[in-house]
Amino acid sequence: MDFKPIEGRQFPRFSGIKTFFRLPIADLNEKFDVALFGVPFDGGATYRVGQRFSPSHVREVSSLGRGYHWGRDTLFSKNLKVADIGDCPTVPIDLKQTYERIEKFVGEVLNGNKKFVACGGDHSITLPILRALKKKYQKSLGLIHFDAHFDTYPPAWDCDFHHGTFVRHAVEEKLIDPKKTIQIGIRGPFAVKEDAEFSKKNEITVWSVDEIRKKGVEALSQIWPDFGDMPVYLSFDVDVLDPAYAPGTGTPVIGGLTSYEAQCFLRHLPKINLVGADVVEIIPDYDPTQITQLFAVDVMFEILSHLSAFA
Amino acid sequence: MDFKPIEGRQFPRFSGIKTFFRLPIADLNEKFDVALFGVPFDGGATYRVGQRFSPSHVREVSSLGRGYHWGRDTLFSKNLKVADIGDCPTVPIDLKQTYERIEKFVGEVLNGNKKFVACGGDHSITLPILRALKKKYQKSLGLIHFDAHFDTYPPAWDCDFHHGTFVRHAVEEKLIDPKKTIQIGIRGPFAVKEDAEFSKKNEITVWSVDEIRKKGVEALSQIWPDFGDMPVYLSFDVDVLDPAYAPGTGTPVIGGLTSYEAQCFLRHLPKINLVGADVVEIIPDYDPTQITQLFAVDVMFEILSHLSAFA
Amino acid sequence: MDFKPIEGRQFPRFSGIKTFFRLPIADLNEKFDVALFGVPFDGGATYRVGQRFSPSHVREVSSLGRGYHWGRDTLFSKNLKVADIGDCPTVPIDLKQTYERIEKFVGEVLNGNKKFVACGGDHSITLPILRALKKKYQKSLGLIHFDAHFDTYPPAWDCDFHHGTFVRHAVEEKLIDPKKTIQIGIRGPFAVKEDAEFSKKNEITVWSVDEIRKKGVEALSQIWPDFGDMPVYLSFDVDVLDPAYAPGTGTPVIGGLTSYEAQCFLRHLPKINLVGADVVEIIPDYDPTQITQLFAVDVMFEILSHLSAFA
Amino acid sequence: MDFKPIEGRQFPRFSGIKTFFRLPIADLNEKFDVALFGVPFDGGATYRVGQRFSPSHVREVSSLGRGYHWGRDTLFSKNLKVADIGDCPTVPIDLKQTYERIEKFVGEVLNGNKKFVACGGDHSITLPILRALKKKYQKSLGLIHFDAHFDTYPPAWDCDFHHGTFVRHAVEEKLIDPKKTIQIGIRGPFAVKEDAEFSKKNEITVWSVDEIRKKGVEALSQIWPDFGDMPVYLSFDVDVLDPAYAPGTGTPVIGGLTSYEAQCFLRHLPKINLVGADVVEIIPDYDPTQITQLFAVDVMFEILSHLSAFA
Amino acid sequence: MDFKPIEGRQFPRFSGIKTFFRLPIADLNEKFDVALFGVPFDGGATYRVGQRFSPSHVREVSSLGRGYHWGRDTLFSKNLKVADIGDCPTVPIDLKQTYERIEKFVGEVLNGNKKFVACGGDHSITLPILRALKKKYQKSLGLIHFDAHFDTYPPAWDCDFHHGTFVRHAVEEKLIDPKKTIQIGIRGPFAVKEDAEFSKKNEITVWSVDEIRKKGVEALSQIWPDFGDMPVYLSFDVDVLDPAYAPGTGTPVIGGLTSYEAQCFLRHLPKINLVGADVVEIIPDYDPTQITQLFAVDVMFEILSHLSAFA
Amino acid sequence: MDFKPIEGRQFPRFSGIKTFFRLPIADLNEKFDVALFGVPFDGGATYRVGQRFSPSHVREVSSLGRGYHWGRDTLFSKNLKVADIGDCPTVPIDLKQTYERIEKFVGEVLNGNKKFVACGGDHSITLPILRALKKKYQKSLGLIHFDAHFDTYPPAWDCDFHHGTFVRHAVEEKLIDPKKTIQIGIRGPFAVKEDAEFSKKNEITVWSVDEIRKKGVEALSQIWPDFGDMPVYLSFDVDVLDPAYAPGTGTPVIGGLTSYEAQCFLRHLPKINLVGADVVEIIPDYDPTQITQLFAVDVMFEILSHLSAFA
Repeated sequence: MDFKPIEGRQFPRFSGIKTFFRLPIADLNEKFDVALFGVPFDGGATYRVGQRFSPSHVREVSSLGRGYHWGRDTLFSKNLKVADIGDCPTVPIDLKQTYERIEKFVGEVLNGNKKFVACGGDHSITLPILRALKKKYQKSLGLIHFDAHFDTYPPAWDCDFHHGTFVRHAVEEKLIDPKKTIQIGIRGPFAVKEDAEFSKKNEITVWSVDEIRKKGVEALSQIWPDFGDMPVYLSFDVDVLDPAYAPGTGTPVIGGLTSYEAQCFLRHLPKINLVGADVVEIIPDYDPTQITQLFAVDVMFEILSHLSAFA
Repeated sequence: MDFKPIEGRQFPRFSGIKTFFRLPIADLNEKFDVALFGVPFDGGATYRVGQRFSPSHVREVSSLGRGYHWGRDTLFSKNLKVADIGDCPTVPIDLKQTYERIEKFVGEVLNGNKKFVACGGDHSITLPILRALKKKYQKSLGLIHFDAHFDTYPPAWDCDFHHGTFVRHAVEEKLIDPKKTIQIGIRGPFAVKEDAEFSKKNEITVWSVDEIRKKGVEALSQIWPDFGDMPVYLSFDVDVLDPAYAPGTGTPVIGGLTSYEAQCFLRHLPKINLVGADVVEIIPDYDPTQITQLFAVDVMFEILSHLSAFA
Repeated sequence: MDFKPIEGRQFPRFSGIKTFFRLPIADLNEKFDVALFGVPFDGGATYRVGQRFSPSHVREVSSLGRGYHWGRDTLFSKNLKVADIGDCPTVPIDLKQTYERIEKFVGEVLNGNKKFVACGGDHSITLPILRALKKKYQKSLGLIHFDAHFDTYPPAWDCDFHHGTFVRHAVEEKLIDPKKTIQIGIRGPFAVKEDAEFSKKNEITVWSVDEIRKKGVEALSQIWPDFGDMPVYLSFDVDVLDPAYAPGTGTPVIGGLTSYEAQCFLRHLPKINLVGADVVEIIPDYDPTQITQLFAVDVMFEILSHLSAFA
Repeated sequence: MDFKPIEGRQFPRFSGIKTFFRLPIADLNEKFDVALFGVPFDGGATYRVGQRFSPSHVREVSSLGRGYHWGRDTLFSKNLKVADIGDCPTVPIDLKQTYERIEKFVGEVLNGNKKFVACGGDHSITLPILRALKKKYQKSLGLIHFDAHFDTYPPAWDCDFHHGTFVRHAVEEKLIDPKKTIQIGIRGPFAVKEDAEFSKKNEITVWSVDEIRKKGVEALSQIWPDFGDMPVYLSFDVDVLDPAYAPGTGTPVIGGLTSYEAQCFLRHLPKINLVGADVVEIIPDYDPTQITQLFAVDVMFEILSHLSAFA
Repeated sequence: MDFKPIEGRQFPRFSGIKTFFRLPIADLNEKFDVALFGVPFDGGATYRVGQRFSPSHVREVSSLGRGYHWGRDTLFSKNLKVADIGDCPTVPIDLKQTYERIEKFVGEVLNGNKKFVACGGDHSITLPILRALKKKYQKSLGLIHFDAHFDTYPPAWDCDFHHGTFVRHAVEEKLIDPKKTIQIGIRGPFAVKEDAEFSKKNEITVWSVDEIRKKGVEALSQIWPDFGDMPVYLSFDVDVLDPAYAPGTGTPVIGGLTSYEAQCFLRHLPKINLVGADVVEIIPDYDPTQITQLFAVDVMFEILSHLSAFA
Repeated sequence: MDFKPIEGRQFPRFSGIKTFFRLPIADLNEKFDVALFGVPFDGGATYRVGQRFSPSHVREVSSLGRGYHWGRDTLFSKNLKVADIGDCPTVPIDLKQTYERIEKFVGEVLNGNKKFVACGGDHSITLPILRALKKKYQKSLGLIHFDAHFDTYPPAWDCDFHHGTFVRHAVEEKLIDPKKTIQIGIRGPFAVKEDAEFSKKNEITVWSVDEIRKKGVEALSQIWPDFGDMPVYLSFDVDVLDPAYAPGTGTPVIGGLTSYEAQCFLRHLPKINLVGADVVEIIPDYDPTQITQLFAVDVMFEILSHLSAFA
């Protein structure tokens, strides 16, 4: 298997069974570098649902994806072997079972010594992914977290785990090191003042939209946390964008980043030991124009290009 | 309080805070006959989701509702005191908690000696409603069940309760008497042959689409099960309609009833002791034309007119 | 000018400046038989609005229209000279001014000895059309009225004229002869019982949906009112169809006709002195699938074919 | 009554009868500070319509609203008693009657010594609101006006009042002081040159998009007009945003503000005697992604937070 | 490989890489009975386009498909080995090249001794399929053709091949025997009278909608042409349905079949030597409700069940 | 004929037969300065299709257009005679025939000594337009090209001409002078590195998005290529905008210009001998909000205002 996308000028982009970036489907025991997979689950969502349909719709739109990164001068499929391994098993009506299945599935990916980019799903899926990573690397990870929300919120309706809690749990379970954690694109409003305090108290670095607009992406990119060679995870919630750029999401918040600002952050990522990533909270049915899905493809492309540049 | 809808020729139908049929909001301890409420829950759905938004969208569209039934010569708000009591509490990410809350909420409605029409929600909400009814009436109920599906299906992913199991559980828990149960509008395809056998084995009466088309609604309406004065529940899944008539639903099945056929069944309901009803599986976001929501309003109207005719 | 549609096999149907059926644009002083025009007005609508965009959207979809009627063996553009004369002037925010402009505009069409088919607009536009016809023919007209609603309703918010009153006013102003008036497709629910009584009291013939389903279109078509050679007007409100067939309308009502039933009525119209017609209450923005607009085109086609058959 | 929103972590945000920000419904004779209400009217609109459905759809989406303002460190429901008082009566087909009803309704709100935020409706609703304010305060008001258009335009079709004239009438009727009036976000094209001259001639301050982009929001925010303690009204037409940020509006204009720029203006509002405000020209049916409605909620939130900060 | 669909109760239906009916992907040299594939091409369409996206969207919706046919008591995956073989190569901007590729691709399927069901594409794809079948079977085929249109039309813009000509060419090239050809669901209007004459002249059996409604499906099903054991092809254009049932199509025609009528025809198909079939003219982007796509799945299911019943 | 748009304050903007900017329809042999026409063709598109519907939808939305340019102080209909001449003939299923028809049609426009603005169509239509211009002016043109893509790409599926090749062919056929060609808004990703090299090798000026964001529109506008008095063509592909601003397009690319940036470029165009222009790649069916179509109208307005300013 050569792990190349099907060429659009040979076989039209609208045709064929849909995989991420038209890459081959592979089993975990094959030899490749980066696994792409979906985690179709929205059982942790508190308002809109439909994130479960995101992996198949992002696969569909990713037919429009291309591999050559003009700024980095990389063609990811040249430096890396990348494959689509299908979807992680989930149980739509049981978060606990789903967490176990995700942790197990990601564990197997890691045991195969693969890096990965996961396509959610609501943001509750990130916690079991981090658990698997912690188990693999036996230490707390660094975290780069794009989001409108802190995701450090308290339980809701006596449920301790939902799509707004993964950072709190990850800190509490020591899956991540809060001092090596950065949250980008955060903005209000919040339900209560306390919602904004967990990150501060735990010394998480926060680049709010106000700060980003005041200082600029380039200036901020000079002061990324120093991750050294620790394993770092990147979690990208598409609601970090302004709803004009990503209407198809679960809890949109006015006043977010432009897609270009998000691209700039991803292009200015320093050389780090990026061991995995996700893009989450896409709800295709809320975006008939498909631009949210296309943006998710772009995030996956930027991550693959980063991995490719430092491979 | 006079339990009359706001008059459209006084205050335009598009205006005002939205309640079912523009009826007043009431507390349970007020004196009235029929409670309308929503059960916004889709945590039992196995494919599409978004049934949680159904109560508020059906309220919105019910502004277009009218009260005078031409065939029955009834104005429901004249014979009955009907009110909107808001939504039953639910927990979107926990079916078990939700079941407890529904059973408790419906129990309170029944303790106030009200009849009710509930607006789901996916079809998993009917089971705890039946539990509350059983507790109240201390005997098995009759059931009139409109649906494309038997809802007698086995567990999925080790989950015994989901939106396709309420009839099986209701029989097993003796909440309903299968011999006083009728299923209308059933049709295939099914996943496996076994899916079609539970009802037969339990001597449930089944009027499939094929049978309805062969014999006609009127002929069938001569042979309703004899419910006597037992308490009867009516559960209406909008997927009993052909998807052309109800595209906004969770698991649409080709080849269903027309809206007129459904109306005819409801208009030919014999005099029974109807103690409660629901209309479920509406997903507004899958129907930009709103006709599914409007049909749900019509089902509620037909049920209220039936109650009114025999009040 | 030859009053032929642009040929689709010469010039693709999606191209060109949009006129009804791709017919030529003509001035009233040119010689032709039937004028097609729009009446873009929704200032009489009490719930949904947007009927003002109907003429341009129906023109767009009418590119898909064809001229040969298989059942009648007629090609309307062969027997008749038909042209698009543009839109009647209206004032979106002033019903009174609009009524004057419609009456004047239709008067000019009639003075040119043209028949016409108008594309509304909400149903309030029919009254001034009938006024112009009365003035021209100096006698009450016969009326064939397809609708879910009687349109004999009382004032709303002290406004005596709105989209649900044209039949009442037409009877009161003696524009139509109620005994030579037939209403087809009527069904409930109504706001109050009184809403169903005006037509009965005035001896208007009513073929309700129930009656149509019981007797069938063919049987009913044997007993049309005897219009003799009196001038007859046909007013077609698309909400006579079930919302599954015409979701893009202002006040949809569940349980209506199928498009085939409507076609059958139009094809069984006896030989009458049809002097004008309208199709109204299309709201394109409520029908992303465009089937309502396409149905409106079909109604116009059936009327033109009728005129052509008896020309 | 405690005038707190229903808590999302107790009762899911998608559930319940929809009020603005899930606040309680109150009568005017109750004691509270700020009344929220809808003015569902589009009888002044000259192109697209459907603004009449805006109040109910904005209520729906406002379930997603939160109360804590991160920048201001305020929780509006803590400092202020805010309630939803339902919708102002309107007459969809009669602008004159509607103007009288709005003026009367707002007069009653003011007599109860409430401030208010109204949700339109097309922009024609602002004039009668200003008339009520003038009557109450017995002097001309200051006006902060966000819009793509001057709204100083001449009559159309002999109608002196429509959704593009309120500023002209407000100046002519001395409801506002043009020297204490500022228009933000104005841009062309215009129909004719004269359309751009009324504001200049009357010495209204105008911050066009070009000027805003040249100088920046922050610099401009140093030079707000000096309103002193005069009563000031804020009218926010969502078409001030670029259509990418607010597609659901009546007369969109390319090249507008971003949502963040609008937020910045609202956050930099000086301490003023803000007595009332509106957000207008939202048409939900033109925005299936709901981002326009969500932005309207954000404007209401920013205004409430301003009132709260200076309460 | 066991050629079973992925079980929905093991792995949720919304998850996984999308194939028809969740069947395995197979190479042609594997041993199985029926190949499913897409032919994503719309280069023969004269009005709406987008049929190229049909195979991937039908695959997506087919996740909702089930295998057990209640009426026939068959589970197609039990009697037959069925697989998804991906998409036939096409050239979106060159009909001639596409025809060559389709003929070659289908030829390979036939050489592997497979039967097949193809998912178009516009209706121009059927001609090269028939050419491949003729080459394989060395004789004219029988044809069962569901359509609103005859598809016997003349060239357009000097192009002899487009989506309305396959029957004419198939007769002229002797790919089919017109006396063993039946066209079901035909209806007007037509562009000209001549459009309705080719079939008659060639003694093709035609069951128009009028005839179907007059005689009924069951009566007609007694008089299918006698196909003997000749190879028969079935081509199903979804525009045979009324637009209410299949809005997502290229040239919709008012007054068509219901989905149940279409099912009945397919269920009453006699035992024939069915060697291949297609379902064509689905345009997903014109049907946000997905019911057209779901109907296409149902057609494929009925055909597979027929093959299974007589396997 | 006076070549003025129909006045919106006389005849509502939603009414009337739709032409570009409500301008009169004219024959080529009438005396006027600038011809507007559509080129409804998408037979060169490699992914999404539907550009064929763009001319009629842009005409529809252009009713909202106005003529007075605030920045330039011009009213284009005052300085110029502008008319709508309908659509260029095309053959949807034959690119070669279409190219001949376009070249002939544009040749006739030029022979009438008209300038023009064409509304595509996919981007393959620009090549035959340039051929006609070369024939008319007998020399290579200057080109100002807004696009996300270079359109210098190689053949696909052995087809040398498609919607991504016009610049390559125009250079090869010497229709344009690459040194007098500028490409604005280009960005990746690309399929392969080579895709980015043609322009560089041919010394085409390229202002990528990165460069535009770094230097700013104003600074770049100081260094336009020096076109002298050579004939210059402007081709505007709406995908130069970010998908948030123009979702309705064929091959959207994340990270594009804002609508305001595009406006600024067009407003800073120096005095040049602009002989023709197009706006292409609008697909109305992918933008239910119509903002892409409205932006296309704005581009046409800016071009007309430029022509008007230097007329």
